[in-house]
Amino acid sequence: MNTSEFRRRGKEMVDYVADYMEGIEGRQVYPDVEPGYLRPLIPDSAPQEPDTFEDIINDIEKIIMPGAASPACTELETVMMDWLGKMLELPKAFLTENAGEGGGVIQGSASEATLVALLAARTKAIHRLQAASPELTQAAIMEKLVAYSSDQAHSSVERAGLIGGVKLKAIPSDGNFAMRASALQEALERDRAAGLIPFFVVATLGTTTCCSFDNLLEVGPICNKEDMWLHVDAAYAGSAFICPEFRHLLNGVEFADSFNFNPHKWLLVNFDCSAMWVKKRSDLTGAFRLDPTYLKHSHQDSGLITDYRHWQIPLGRRFRSLKMWFVFRMYGVKGLQAYIRKHVQLSHEFESLVLQDPRFEICAEVTLGLVCFRLKGSNKVNEALLQRINSAKKIHLVPCHLRDKFVLRFAICSRTVESAHVQRAWEHIKELADDVLRAERE
Amino acid sequence: MNTSEFRRRGKEMVDYVADYMEGIEGRQVYPDVEPGYLRPLIPDSAPQEPDTFEDIINDIEKIIMPGAASPACTELETVMMDWLGKMLELPKAFLTENAGEGGGVIQGSASEATLVALLAARTKAIHRLQAASPELTQAAIMEKLVAYSSDQAHSSVERAGLIGGVKLKAIPSDGNFAMRASALQEALERDRAAGLIPFFVVATLGTTTCCSFDNLLEVGPICNKEDMWLHVDAAYAGSAFICPEFRHLLNGVEFADSFNFNPHKWLLVNFDCSAMWVKKRSDLTGAFRLDPTYLKHSHQDSGLITDYRHWQIPLGRRFRSLKMWFVFRMYGVKGLQAYIRKHVQLSHEFESLVLQDPRFEICAEVTLGLVCFRLKGSNKVNEALLQRINSAKKIHLVPCHLRDKFVLRFAICSRTVESAHVQRAWEHIKELADDVLRAERE
Repeated sequence: MNTSEFRRRGKEMVDYVADYMEGIEGRQVYPDVEPGYLRPLIPDSAPQEPDTFEDIINDIEKIIMPGAASPACTELETVMMDWLGKMLELPKAFLTENAGEGGGVIQGSASEATLVALLAARTKAIHRLQAASPELTQAAIMEKLVAYSSDQAHSSVERAGLIGGVKLKAIPSDGNFAMRASALQEALERDRAAGLIPFFVVATLGTTTCCSFDNLLEVGPICNKEDMWLHVDAAYAGSAFICPEFRHLLNGVEFADSFNFNPHKWLLVNFDCSAMWVKKRSDLTGAFRLDPTYLKHSHQDSGLITDYRHWQIPLGRRFRSLKMWFVFRMYGVKGLQAYIRKHVQLSHEFESLVLQDPRFEICAEVTLGLVCFRLKGSNKVNEALLQRINSAKKIHLVPCHLRDKFVLRFAICSRTVESAHVQRAWEHIKELADDVLRAERE
Repeated sequence: MNTSEFRRRGKEMVDYVADYMEGIEGRQVYPDVEPGYLRPLIPDSAPQEPDTFEDIINDIEKIIMPGAASPACTELETVMMDWLGKMLELPKAFLTENAGEGGGVIQGSASEATLVALLAARTKAIHRLQAASPELTQAAIMEKLVAYSSDQAHSSVERAGLIGGVKLKAIPSDGNFAMRASALQEALERDRAAGLIPFFVVATLGTTTCCSFDNLLEVGPICNKEDMWLHVDAAYAGSAFICPEFRHLLNGVEFADSFNFNPHKWLLVNFDCSAMWVKKRSDLTGAFRLDPTYLKHSHQDSGLITDYRHWQIPLGRRFRSLKMWFVFRMYGVKGLQAYIRKHVQLSHEFESLVLQDPRFEICAEVTLGLVCFRLKGSNKVNEALLQRINSAKKIHLVPCHLRDKFVLRFAICSRTVESAHVQRAWEHIKELADDVLRAERE
């Protein structure tokens, strides 16, 4: 949608809201629909080609408004999570349709998804161990529980361990910054020998530092065999898996118990919207379920409805699936794929510019929209370069450490980015590098 | 703001956003301002009388846009939490101004606030006990930690205990559904004698069931004396404390370590916006702080800025303080007080209608906007009445249990509610009660 259509549609929406407020007393306080009303009214997957804004607004009045906030909010979320799961070709076990045991939920952030997965895994492990040895206390078990992630995993994984009150160990990644079977296996053996109980593994697809990928096809079978919950965190990279040429990066997700990525990062859905799927809904609800009278309702145990409050940390919920519905329909799957492809192409364009300048090096394989690069030479000179770049305020880079190297990260992430921006940014970086290297020689 | 002004202002905002998008390349990617820039630019408390929409929009361009998302998002939040804290006459220790140790943060829900408080308390207790007895493991301590709340507390408190992996015990409330010193003291003595370690108490001001108030003036000193973290949850009732005549209900908050209420419930700020204050910021950051390179920044240890990511479960944040800024200025403190007073007056109006009908009884003291009532008689007849009310779909009531009584809850909560609505609702309830009682006799 260009800005001129945005102006027109935005103003129509303002009138829609005002009309709603003026007419609110004419509406019922509670909808007439029955649980499950929504799914039959909309297609079972996202459109390939864009729908018009008109179509979507008409559906709002026809499909959403009669279902009011509840159950429409819940039911649209369930169906949108199925749509998105199918866009990624997630295994059927993660979908809700066909009355499977799995399903999706919108969380606020990948941090919350990791925490929710860890808490569910913790409860499951405690129940399993107490079933075998009823004399074990929860605390005695928790003292021995140990979770794992790669040393490249996001800090939110360590934080989930802190909050959950369990040990989290970092598995040394390989030369490509990936977690591999051998290193994990080694840690498991060492920890089991020390009397610990491995219960949870976070595999990262697309690390924050350099967009590296843990080896799911190696790690997954180990988790299944050793009865450890496998959570796959693809916060940034997940959006790319809607393109068939990148889908192989998700291979091995069939071994996972839970999977998460953030459509708010790279799929044009505004913050916040973090998409999480589990293979067994009852693993989540088992960890969190409490039912006071004021939250009971007549469809409680019907199996027809999803009580998302048992799937998450907060109790209240926003109607975030509307954002997904609008974006998926306004772009169509093809439009979203084209958007991802353009960003990846631009990052490769930047990569090739860097490679043409012998003063620079690429520090990690460029797979999606992130390019890790640096001046050949000391960390100090790279820190000086970063400082000049960010002080000039024409572009903004966030650095990282890869092993002991200070590295600059060029991320393609704006909705409107074009080749010209990338070219201009590179010219700018080169000029500042000239200055830094000249200053160093002086 | 009436709907006709809403139409005009809403459309201006659409144009503002479109202009921003069209002109974005002319803006700097990173602001020029220094940390702490914002506070001196705005008043140190909320206006008593309403500001105009024009004034606020002008301030957006002048004060917020130069500070972009960061640091404006953080700094406005800190100042708004001070504004709101002053509206409630919170003790100075909870405010950020004057470089105190306390401060406020916006959470998504009261559930999150309770969890964050419990986790901070848990970390603090573990550190204290390990300092005294370094041989104690975290798990050995957690096994003994015990938290308390009234048997009327919201289910999210029990949930926080589950997530935090600590025991939570319900203290029997008194005849007014309030937690009192004697019952708490009794539990403490019994649990200490059993070798447990009391560390955390949640006191509720305005319970979900019947808007009862735990006795803070009794419970607070016990918590302080016994070195237990006191968290005060006033999710619903907190908004009323901006009125001097209701402020006494908050007396005793000076004993608390953390305090929370939801402006999204009753202070006209859209969902979600849950306001939480702590007396010592370092208690929160101590529980959650992790600093990977990609999240480091040059003002890290300057003491000048607030890293809210250490105060909450998620990492990402939305710019929710803008909602507070707009609401506080558009209504002014007096306008917000008038809004609260009107609701309380209407709930007393409903109460007196109920009292005039000898078939009904009031089940708990009416203090704010909630009236708990029922037909004198069996739970069955009241369940039948509720069923008729909610099936008719003219009004919607959520029930509760008070001890073994099934109770109907009439909540005044709409922005546009008037006396006529209350009168009409009561006529409707009486008619349905006639039907229910007639059906019972037949």
